[in-house]
Amino acid sequence: MAQLVVHPVGSYTFGSKPPKHEKDTSTQAKLERLKEKYAREGLRRSVEAVLVVHEHGHPHVLVLQMGAAFFRLPGGRLRPGEDEAEGMLRKLSSLLAPPAENMRPDWRIADVLGTWYRPNFENLMYPYCPPHISRPKEVRRLFLIALPERCYLSVPKNMRLVAVPLFEIYDNISRYGPVISSIPALLSRFSLTLAGRPPPAAAAAVAAAQATAAALVAAHQQQQQQAQQQQLVQYGQQHQPGQPGQQQKGGIAVSLSAPPAAAPQLAQPPQPQHPPAQYGYQQADEGLMVDFDDM
Amino acid sequence: MAQLVVHPVGSYTFGSKPPKHEKDTSTQAKLERLKEKYAREGLRRSVEAVLVVHEHGHPHVLVLQMGAAFFRLPGGRLRPGEDEAEGMLRKLSSLLAPPAENMRPDWRIADVLGTWYRPNFENLMYPYCPPHISRPKEVRRLFLIALPERCYLSVPKNMRLVAVPLFEIYDNISRYGPVISSIPALLSRFSLTLAGRPPPAAAAAVAAAQATAAALVAAHQQQQQQAQQQQLVQYGQQHQPGQPGQQQKGGIAVSLSAPPAAAPQLAQPPQPQHPPAQYGYQQADEGLMVDFDDM
Repeated sequence: MAQLVVHPVGSYTFGSKPPKHEKDTSTQAKLERLKEKYAREGLRRSVEAVLVVHEHGHPHVLVLQMGAAFFRLPGGRLRPGEDEAEGMLRKLSSLLAPPAENMRPDWRIADVLGTWYRPNFENLMYPYCPPHISRPKEVRRLFLIALPERCYLSVPKNMRLVAVPLFEIYDNISRYGPVISSIPALLSRFSLTLAGRPPPAAAAAVAAAQATAAALVAAHQQQQQQAQQQQLVQYGQQHQPGQPGQQQKGGIAVSLSAPPAAAPQLAQPPQPQHPPAQYGYQQADEGLMVDFDDM
Repeated sequence: MAQLVVHPVGSYTFGSKPPKHEKDTSTQAKLERLKEKYAREGLRRSVEAVLVVHEHGHPHVLVLQMGAAFFRLPGGRLRPGEDEAEGMLRKLSSLLAPPAENMRPDWRIADVLGTWYRPNFENLMYPYCPPHISRPKEVRRLFLIALPERCYLSVPKNMRLVAVPLFEIYDNISRYGPVISSIPALLSRFSLTLAGRPPPAAAAAVAAAQATAAALVAAHQQQQQQAQQQQLVQYGQQHQPGQPGQQQKGGIAVSLSAPPAAAPQLAQPPQPQHPPAQYGYQQADEGLMVDFDDM
């Protein structure tokens, strides 16, 4: 069985970089541009990256959020003739690598997760080429990326990087679309090792002891889930590339910052309604938000 | 990229064998039995097989149908301590191999497609172990099976073997459940070679020529889809194990039969509303039905 080692979200240091603006301001404009480009260049080939971290003992996928409700995976269009793997790394760097060349994460392509087809100049994509379609308009390859144990990630200022738990993504086409919401199934063939976690026996013992408490918490959280929807845990932290950072363990992300006197500290997340349990899943919200827009 | 060679459904010869009755007569009974067994033996490990064929240039998955609306993949529960791969082949043979030992198909496990978890004694399964669940009640592994170019398959008389196109399965949880309906996405990482098809260039030329006709047909078929729902293409053919069969090419399945004088011929499928096009997808129904119940 295929293996993947997944590291805690807290292993990574998040910063920001200048905004990357989308070329299109609407879905309509995007489809129009696709059509024009198709007439000139033919089939659009695109690539997207699935980056996995863990938190509270559950795998999370790093998703880029733009605006209130648009989610996308890091990736984009390949250049004509460009190699898929090379293009994937180029897109990852463009979207998530710190500007300083020597801080580029040592990420690598672990595997192909799937392939999606856009049969027409429309928003619908399918994980197969539908019958009668001999010339799809776009073919998109999903790659699983193996992240190193630690690295710096820089997010364009007009986007947010959100770690979304699998259980939130799963069967949630309405929010994340068919491609992202298929990721839990696509990852299920891997044996995921959640690095930095206690061995299973210890974890099981703790989990058993916490089961009763967890049930009470879950019931309570369900009530509060609506209220929490917008109370995403937000971190604002200026990324200063090239400046040796002080690693500061937060609950969720390790921040890269200038020395304490010179730079704002890691913003304090809103206090959780319940004290965090070390091994139980605690948050019923939609994702851990790493937010750089407010700086 | 992972490769899989897929053969036409017509390459396989379908027969029937004595019925295999389910141990449980209702979902409730099944969950009760799961609970009792869990108390004695702990975690239930199960395996399921994904067998892929093609027809009309589109991949189809072989699914067992029981009754009017219950679909399942071939597979089942492993014995305590049994190896997953061995158990998968045992279950496949039990459900689909002809009774004669020397006619056992040369199938092999090509890959792991995914893993599903049943956290509680309930019908819900997820492609991950949900948070707080340290002791799931069932873990189910999905295997992709590579079928040989030709073989005999025997189906228990109380079941039907249905070849369901990917586009019918996709995003159709209500009919097929979450596991089966995830198969199109799970298969999308494979480069499928549809064996016995003309080379892509020829296929593309034909497809282009047929595009206009196909659009008209599609519009017409949409109107007729409801009416066709129950008009499944049915084949009835007695399987006579050990008796050298005459291979008889039908439109969809190659039937194994005794010489013409001694056995019923391949049943004639209902005439399609439109003459079949060689490379375009023609049927808007839900699946090619290989049916042995009516014999």
